[in-house]
Amino acid sequence: MPETHPFDDAIALQWQFESGHRGETSPAYANMVGPFGGITAAQTLNAVLQHPQCQGEPVALTVNFCAAVADGAFHIIARPVRTNRSTQHWIVETIQNGECVIAATVFTALRRDTWHAPEHAKPEVPSPADVPLRGGRPRVEWINRYEMRFIEGAIPAHWDGSGATASLSRLWMRDQPARGLDYPALAAMADVFFPRIWRRRATLVPVGTVSLTVYFHADRDLLVTTGTGYVLGQAQAQAFRKGYFDQTAQLWNEAGDLLATSHQVVYFRE
Amino acid sequence: MPETHPFDDAIALQWQFESGHRGETSPAYANMVGPFGGITAAQTLNAVLQHPQCQGEPVALTVNFCAAVADGAFHIIARPVRTNRSTQHWIVETIQNGECVIAATVFTALRRDTWHAPEHAKPEVPSPADVPLRGGRPRVEWINRYEMRFIEGAIPAHWDGSGATASLSRLWMRDQPARGLDYPALAAMADVFFPRIWRRRATLVPVGTVSLTVYFHADRDLLVTTGTGYVLGQAQAQAFRKGYFDQTAQLWNEAGDLLATSHQVVYFRE
Repeated sequence: MPETHPFDDAIALQWQFESGHRGETSPAYANMVGPFGGITAAQTLNAVLQHPQCQGEPVALTVNFCAAVADGAFHIIARPVRTNRSTQHWIVETIQNGECVIAATVFTALRRDTWHAPEHAKPEVPSPADVPLRGGRPRVEWINRYEMRFIEGAIPAHWDGSGATASLSRLWMRDQPARGLDYPALAAMADVFFPRIWRRRATLVPVGTVSLTVYFHADRDLLVTTGTGYVLGQAQAQAFRKGYFDQTAQLWNEAGDLLATSHQVVYFRE
Repeated sequence: MPETHPFDDAIALQWQFESGHRGETSPAYANMVGPFGGITAAQTLNAVLQHPQCQGEPVALTVNFCAAVADGAFHIIARPVRTNRSTQHWIVETIQNGECVIAATVFTALRRDTWHAPEHAKPEVPSPADVPLRGGRPRVEWINRYEMRFIEGAIPAHWDGSGATASLSRLWMRDQPARGLDYPALAAMADVFFPRIWRRRATLVPVGTVSLTVYFHADRDLLVTTGTGYVLGQAQAQAFRKGYFDQTAQLWNEAGDLLATSHQVVYFRE
């Protein structure tokens, strides 16, 4: 057992006052080129949550991937551009070698009890214990940081161009080893889905997320209740056109609470 | 006939070099308090599109509504934080009376022909001519700037707390008077849907969008082809919880092309 969880190591930041937070990429979450986008989203959010002026819980996070993050150190500059009585708006820029690699916005709020209702219901799926673990050897290291149990739409076993008529994927997931759910972990899980175009085409075309948004429906109490339980993730594209496609995603806990909804737009090259 | 379309008047900006673009709120697009959020999104996007350094077409727009925009002048400062060979990332801040009222990001790109496929198909609905015009006198001025033909889920006729079990709305819309579709107009249309909680509850609870994202699937050619035709808009919430709900939306043209997808998270008070 490591002393700290690899996720905590990966999102750790050092506060350096006017230089913002210093972080480093983590080999444990390495992707094909640079880090897994989800860990970058988690680091970005963490820079706001760890900021001395931060108020409330995150409600919305948008991360724009401006350029590939290189292995090594970076600085995250988070600015509270507007602080209201119970809400706060942030602009975040991550700088590496003097250039902007991430441009993000975060909205935080003090949440209150109100009328509430679900609307996008958790689909009927087998329970995690009844779904086999993802097989095969992953192409990239970060995949090993998640326990993934695909119910539908696993990554293609054969890159034969056969593809699927719909890009839907559903899986049970959790951190590997298990770790109590928090906002950075949920932000990362929103980006766990492999590119929808790979599912549609069964062809390994080059891709890169350019913008990712996560809306957090869970408050801290619901995260604590969810704990180290499994999260059901579902993702599907809406359109593929002229080099870009989008993805909508939902994340529920085992009890059926919608923890977060997410969207992203992804570049692809043919 | 006015000399210019009210939409063009509303999004007009004056370039003032290091002070960015100067704009003004438009009484024609007034909402309950301050301007219609869609016109603010359109102005924000326009500040990037009109910027002397702008390259390519918009692919993603995220607008964070930090505070109510007051009637009168504002300055929009758009900064290209990263310019790549065929893509560009922007951070945009709108300043009014020395304070930030809008924080946004925009991603633009030179789009190329690639493999393409639809996935979220346009629902089967009656054609615009077979759907009656929205009746009743609108509570706010901006509604008069749109021709709206609700197929399903019109704004409640009676605020009697009866509500609906699902928040889905579908309508045919276009600018009133008709105007050739462009990116700012499409951004505004993505915010045309009245708050989903009003549909669920048939109760006029106070609301305010805090973050809106639009992904543009249409390139310029498709906007030109769509022209002054109708746009089918569809919107639905996924969860209402602790003071916030989200909304996903799709916008198709009459031919069935998915022009844009959109998401927003909205504050509500009970």
